[in-house]
Amino acid sequence: MHHYFEKFEAYRQSRPFSGNPAELYEPVNYIMELGGKRMRPILALMGYHLFEEDYSPALPLAYALEIFHNFSLVHDDIMDAAPLRRNQQTVHIKWNSNLAILAGDVMLIKAYEYLLQIAEKERIVPIVSAFNRVAREVCEGQQMDMNFELRKDVSIPEYIRMIELKTSVLVGGALEMAGLAAGAADADVQRLYHFGRNIGIAFQIQDDLLDAFGEKAEVGKQIGGDILQNKKTWLILRALELAEERVRYRLETLMNRTSDDPAQKIEEVKAILEYLNVPVLAEAAKAEYQKAAFEQLEAIEVPTERKKALTILAESLFSRKS
Amino acid sequence: MHHYFEKFEAYRQSRPFSGNPAELYEPVNYIMELGGKRMRPILALMGYHLFEEDYSPALPLAYALEIFHNFSLVHDDIMDAAPLRRNQQTVHIKWNSNLAILAGDVMLIKAYEYLLQIAEKERIVPIVSAFNRVAREVCEGQQMDMNFELRKDVSIPEYIRMIELKTSVLVGGALEMAGLAAGAADADVQRLYHFGRNIGIAFQIQDDLLDAFGEKAEVGKQIGGDILQNKKTWLILRALELAEERVRYRLETLMNRTSDDPAQKIEEVKAILEYLNVPVLAEAAKAEYQKAAFEQLEAIEVPTERKKALTILAESLFSRKS
Repeated sequence: MHHYFEKFEAYRQSRPFSGNPAELYEPVNYIMELGGKRMRPILALMGYHLFEEDYSPALPLAYALEIFHNFSLVHDDIMDAAPLRRNQQTVHIKWNSNLAILAGDVMLIKAYEYLLQIAEKERIVPIVSAFNRVAREVCEGQQMDMNFELRKDVSIPEYIRMIELKTSVLVGGALEMAGLAAGAADADVQRLYHFGRNIGIAFQIQDDLLDAFGEKAEVGKQIGGDILQNKKTWLILRALELAEERVRYRLETLMNRTSDDPAQKIEEVKAILEYLNVPVLAEAAKAEYQKAAFEQLEAIEVPTERKKALTILAESLFSRKS
Repeated sequence: MHHYFEKFEAYRQSRPFSGNPAELYEPVNYIMELGGKRMRPILALMGYHLFEEDYSPALPLAYALEIFHNFSLVHDDIMDAAPLRRNQQTVHIKWNSNLAILAGDVMLIKAYEYLLQIAEKERIVPIVSAFNRVAREVCEGQQMDMNFELRKDVSIPEYIRMIELKTSVLVGGALEMAGLAAGAADADVQRLYHFGRNIGIAFQIQDDLLDAFGEKAEVGKQIGGDILQNKKTWLILRALELAEERVRYRLETLMNRTSDDPAQKIEEVKAILEYLNVPVLAEAAKAEYQKAAFEQLEAIEVPTERKKALTILAESLFSRKS
């Protein structure tokens, strides 16, 4: 058993942010300490470990990825006017929007500083190049998400493209950059990327599903949050595609207003989704992306034994009932 | 005569920003097209040209620097709630703050994309490393500036450090990175940096001076703008240091409120500054940084002939009466 999480946390905790003025770095340490699964850095360590026995050279890359992820959370939370992140105040609420903008900026720069600490100096340029592409796509995904809030006619392929950009390219990119750092063959680097990208999409569809049909204890938050926020999730978009005129009209009406009776609204929307068989279709869509992901992992040309950690992690992401 | 400006503009204009969603890139092209002197890219081209006959390989670096500079303007304008930039609406006013945040983010990433296009591949890592340091310091300068707004006791050395971080390190950094790209000796790279850094500080002191004591036609904006905004410029901070109790109290009173009679306020503050001999002291401080700058330029080990463009440019920055 390898202790990827513990190794990453030890590395991160011994490198807190500091500098002058101190006010700039307080919110950075705050958001970095809020926790989370550290999924992207762990994937980077596991990806590197496919090819190299000692995966500690991947720690600066892992840290850069986690800093970038948290930068995007700080800025997205301003844009989404989100009061809470991991049950704690968001940076722009605890401090203010100006500091949240500037702290985010310095985090993005710090991510590049850690990329330059990658030991394999001759591989830094291709890694930074991949990082640039992924970082730009994450911004494009956020813009797409903001655009969708103003649109009524979002298609499923558009939705998939949005979640792909907003979250999955970074999951795929973490593995891709780890492969680049380890000196993996181009074909394997590509497989790592598409493994992560497909895992990311499957995970987001599952997330949409659990938000409406999960058990509260297992999901760790109130069921039906997306429905109450009128979010255009995979479930809602698919339902709008499938519904006959009368049902579609009712669903649109429900999703266009704030309900006086939240529990009743959640029940009615879920009833419509089930009437249209959407949960089963979502499971099938998720399973397809999962399958595509595992095919990529299987094709990577290293002994199966080496892939155990990634296989277990990826399976654990989908082991919840939904 | 070399056409640095025209060459840079031709390069920039043939590389407009594009991508999906288009909404994300519109404000980027808007701010990049607002104009300006293109000081940082021109300095980078001139710095490279000290060492190499053909300076076109420095164009991607020059563009990266101008993109970074404009990124910082977009985010700073949100933080400063500035309605206008170069007499046009700022991005967050013309669109909204969310788009200004995200457009700025993508610009910062795009700056790194252009850094990776530098032809001298083996020099990219040291250049990106210098860029990271400068970019971080620019954020720190903005934080210092925001801190100063809430403080009464800012000293001249603190003020100099703030303008150094907020603007001069990028001027110095542009020349430093150009030297790195051209493969200059370490000592010359350092001289280039300190030449630019000192020029930047001298220019900012001159800017403070012109805002209060320049001619409107020459400054291109209303005289006394800083005074009406109660900005703690070099002039005001030096005056507060020098003034006896009674005058200091009067100056603080004037700087703590919005006047009903702007012209009268400007006149009285200027009278206090002149009474304390502050304009002469500012000229002397400016001259000292100018001198330090030109000493660095002289020490660079290339024929004097090669330094002509940088000398003429630097002198032209200070040729206005003030």
